[in-house]
Amino acid sequence: MNKNFVQQLIKNYKPGFSLEQPFYTNNDVFEAEWNSIFKRHWLYAGNTAQLPRPGDYFLYHLQNDSIIIIRGNKNEVYAHYNTCRHRGSAICLNDSGHAAKLICPYHQWVYDKDGTLLNARMMPDDFSKEGYDLHSAHVQVVEGLIFICLAENAPDFSPIQKSLSPYLKPYKINEAKLASVKNYTLHANWKLVGENFRECYHCGGAHPEYCNAVIGANLREDTNELTLAKQKSWNEKGLAITLVEVTEGTTSYAIRYPLRPGIESYSVDGKKVSIPMGMHRDHDAGVIGLVNYPNFWMDAVSDYVWTMRVTPVNASTTDVQFCWLVDANAIEGKDYTLERLTEFWEITGDQDGKLCENNFKGIQSKAYAPGPYAPVEDQVVNFVDWCVKQLREAIHDAVPV
Amino acid sequence: MNKNFVQQLIKNYKPGFSLEQPFYTNNDVFEAEWNSIFKRHWLYAGNTAQLPRPGDYFLYHLQNDSIIIIRGNKNEVYAHYNTCRHRGSAICLNDSGHAAKLICPYHQWVYDKDGTLLNARMMPDDFSKEGYDLHSAHVQVVEGLIFICLAENAPDFSPIQKSLSPYLKPYKINEAKLASVKNYTLHANWKLVGENFRECYHCGGAHPEYCNAVIGANLREDTNELTLAKQKSWNEKGLAITLVEVTEGTTSYAIRYPLRPGIESYSVDGKKVSIPMGMHRDHDAGVIGLVNYPNFWMDAVSDYVWTMRVTPVNASTTDVQFCWLVDANAIEGKDYTLERLTEFWEITGDQDGKLCENNFKGIQSKAYAPGPYAPVEDQVVNFVDWCVKQLREAIHDAVPV
Amino acid sequence: MNKNFVQQLIKNYKPGFSLEQPFYTNNDVFEAEWNSIFKRHWLYAGNTAQLPRPGDYFLYHLQNDSIIIIRGNKNEVYAHYNTCRHRGSAICLNDSGHAAKLICPYHQWVYDKDGTLLNARMMPDDFSKEGYDLHSAHVQVVEGLIFICLAENAPDFSPIQKSLSPYLKPYKINEAKLASVKNYTLHANWKLVGENFRECYHCGGAHPEYCNAVIGANLREDTNELTLAKQKSWNEKGLAITLVEVTEGTTSYAIRYPLRPGIESYSVDGKKVSIPMGMHRDHDAGVIGLVNYPNFWMDAVSDYVWTMRVTPVNASTTDVQFCWLVDANAIEGKDYTLERLTEFWEITGDQDGKLCENNFKGIQSKAYAPGPYAPVEDQVVNFVDWCVKQLREAIHDAVPV
Repeated sequence: MNKNFVQQLIKNYKPGFSLEQPFYTNNDVFEAEWNSIFKRHWLYAGNTAQLPRPGDYFLYHLQNDSIIIIRGNKNEVYAHYNTCRHRGSAICLNDSGHAAKLICPYHQWVYDKDGTLLNARMMPDDFSKEGYDLHSAHVQVVEGLIFICLAENAPDFSPIQKSLSPYLKPYKINEAKLASVKNYTLHANWKLVGENFRECYHCGGAHPEYCNAVIGANLREDTNELTLAKQKSWNEKGLAITLVEVTEGTTSYAIRYPLRPGIESYSVDGKKVSIPMGMHRDHDAGVIGLVNYPNFWMDAVSDYVWTMRVTPVNASTTDVQFCWLVDANAIEGKDYTLERLTEFWEITGDQDGKLCENNFKGIQSKAYAPGPYAPVEDQVVNFVDWCVKQLREAIHDAVPV
Repeated sequence: MNKNFVQQLIKNYKPGFSLEQPFYTNNDVFEAEWNSIFKRHWLYAGNTAQLPRPGDYFLYHLQNDSIIIIRGNKNEVYAHYNTCRHRGSAICLNDSGHAAKLICPYHQWVYDKDGTLLNARMMPDDFSKEGYDLHSAHVQVVEGLIFICLAENAPDFSPIQKSLSPYLKPYKINEAKLASVKNYTLHANWKLVGENFRECYHCGGAHPEYCNAVIGANLREDTNELTLAKQKSWNEKGLAITLVEVTEGTTSYAIRYPLRPGIESYSVDGKKVSIPMGMHRDHDAGVIGLVNYPNFWMDAVSDYVWTMRVTPVNASTTDVQFCWLVDANAIEGKDYTLERLTEFWEITGDQDGKLCENNFKGIQSKAYAPGPYAPVEDQVVNFVDWCVKQLREAIHDAVPV
Repeated sequence: MNKNFVQQLIKNYKPGFSLEQPFYTNNDVFEAEWNSIFKRHWLYAGNTAQLPRPGDYFLYHLQNDSIIIIRGNKNEVYAHYNTCRHRGSAICLNDSGHAAKLICPYHQWVYDKDGTLLNARMMPDDFSKEGYDLHSAHVQVVEGLIFICLAENAPDFSPIQKSLSPYLKPYKINEAKLASVKNYTLHANWKLVGENFRECYHCGGAHPEYCNAVIGANLREDTNELTLAKQKSWNEKGLAITLVEVTEGTTSYAIRYPLRPGIESYSVDGKKVSIPMGMHRDHDAGVIGLVNYPNFWMDAVSDYVWTMRVTPVNASTTDVQFCWLVDANAIEGKDYTLERLTEFWEITGDQDGKLCENNFKGIQSKAYAPGPYAPVEDQVVNFVDWCVKQLREAIHDAVPV
């Protein structure tokens, strides 16, 4: 990694303007970001609705690492590196599945769900199984959302817990039903995906379906009065309404805002798509928008939860996973259909994906120069500031090279 | 870029022999060529027949840059970098199209055809649009052929103008009809494509259709007498016949030579494929062959123009675009068919593409060593000399690193 | 190449443990291996059953080099670099074929089968053909197996000759019939393929068909008594039974071991798949297993020969070629069918390919660490030791950089 080059870029950063080209395209910057952001902070991995029974697992691929996220016997969640301690074979071969024990398919070394090496056949008598448990990552669960941390020492999880928990609790995600998971690969730097989801300057031109559902998304409608009235009624129902912002030392953002009057859910026709979820009793909870830097975005309405997990592959490629959850008792075909449940975010997400990819195309030109953010892009500034701050701190802390 | 390595290669260059392997395969050499050749010289981008109306545009992709070539309201031509000055999004998303204004699809900043920023919605009152026009490239048009230059200071265009204009004028390209555009990607270094088009040593073995149309292409037939007789008659009709050669400081080559007696056009059966083009009144104008280093090749007969634009992608990949033009009044189905118009160069171009790719395959071997050019390959020597000269000058001028 | 880095890795190598990650993933290590192993040792290229007549050839692709393996007029075998001495074009364009002379498709320079330049048309009178013969590689044939060496000075071939010849002779490969050739590309480091084929610790879990054919392959059955009885009978028939091991300065391994009683061949149902091959008169020759480091593996039973050629493409990609040979007189459809002949090794090879790819996946993780080999993996240790030894010697011999 060329530390001086990255340091100079950081020094040149001008808040209020989009980042210089190398922040989006350079491999040294990407490597610095991977170390200072993705290997240091809590990352959203998935949710417990993806792991209904003990032994259920899914894999989270992060660069060359594959992490096994697995339910233990007491419903606890573990995160193990998917690498046998014998000769290094991947242990779980499918992206999700069920395993009573984790058995390496190469030479059948056997590990418990908690990563303990239970059996290594035909090894000599003096072989000690101690020291050959699976390597693990930190893991924390907040109201059904699973976060992992690849750092040796994970940062305090409680600010995330405190910020997100009041908004999440009514959805009872741990008991929810996983309705659909979809994966996309975008040819764009990961920060462009984050930036795109932090402003609605583009919504009026790009998202007719979204603007139809969300009043004010076009930035042309006054929603103050409606919001105040709704906040009063949500508060009475016990639904969280306190705005949480990303500030010094925190990574979470949370908000609740109203749908357009008459709109029941995030759907193309504005009508509800499933039964009220968790503790909800009606279709009037508005929208909650949750963010946790660097990789978690979630929008939920009264009847479903939609999550987005953003995973950088390299400077120019980003994997995105969408996940749709419905109430534990919702029955497909009766209470909801997959098509109606998923089409709103498939359409909107596809629009955003194309915007991000086109943004990335133009940024790669030698003619690209940082441009000024509009005042309505203040949350983009917040996100970009945060990213640069993590880089600056990590570079400062790093041993000189 | 490893300047010393490139300098040593240049020093080792032995005129009359094919280049050493790294000239064709090495990324440092490619980067040096990109800077010293492609970012310094005039590049053929396309022609005005591709832009019949004001607002018509096409994109020219050069490395990470995409250039919008667009007709202005007074039929002038502009070349803008396809990168919004706000957050850098690509503005034109299709490879060709029509736009009354250039509107960024991300946040709808609006530019005029000449690149002026007309509107940036929701920006603060103190935002000054000045300084946020689109970045542009130099552009010149000679008889309908559009050339651009990515350098800060473009070289004098008049030598190209003077060399090509007498040959081009009779075709009236600005009023011509665009019949077909086809794109190919070759797995070969761009210079191999150039070398291939500068000699007919390979024609006898590789191009039966071409040799059938062009007398002497097989290098076994004496064409002196025929050529002299034809030159007399062309001169009487006012058609240019003066040979233009690439010499010190110039980049253009132009020649007119006869088709085989009885052959009317570049076609598989030797018969005409369309009505005489532009000012031509018969099918007896022979062939004109035009070249402009580094990326322009054109062959035209009495009834159609065929152009080839060569665009390096990296050391081992080259994009090639073929374009076929016919007379403004030629009607498809009546005066010409696309199949007959394009098959001659599709067949011949495909033969050449395979020769270039096979040449590149063998050059990558450690057993490859520069071999001697045959006397009939003297124009290849001219091209290769020119390329090495550009590199030598640029390396010499460069600030030491 | 970062010599210090590779030296440090070699110094850290701990025999009895799998190699550190960079041995499998790092490009500098791969380059060092290519030079110290693949450009220094004899490589299996193919066999003479692939070249029944003079002029028959096949290509062997090694990195950027393509080698033409061709039969001469006296049935001798040549190995030429597939690169014309004029401008470097590839000469043979198909992976196998027949050529009375080697004629470059670009400008028709003509070479004899032995590589002599016979004709270079239109070259000047003072052009001397001497010095423009094709570049060649060393080539040796042992009982129909063709080995080449890309080094300037090839190591002594006689140890390979002596080790393999007694086992090969009864198969009469030079007169055998080529039944099938199949190519696979594995996303795994080449050494993982070698390691996989040097142990049966994985067989019980991974290869039900193989374990059904080979007694003891599951490492749970005692085969001593059976082996001794069979060795006596093989010896009486004149079949080689002396174990050959890879030791200081040699590269070959050879062994004969019994099939499960009642099993006639390597087949899914255990029944013979063709007529006895070469000098064999029954289906009771057991299995011979031959290896020659770094790239040759062969298993043969009484009625067919199966060879595996392992060719690294880069640190993470390996080409594998399987080849099936039967007796010269075996008639397809009557004496054998392709399906029955090939399915045993297609199934078993596919199982191994997946194991290798999964092994490689897990090794790429930051959590991978060298693990201890089991005692039954002693031949893997032999192979890995050999590889590291070649690297160590080459690095030691190399001029310091």
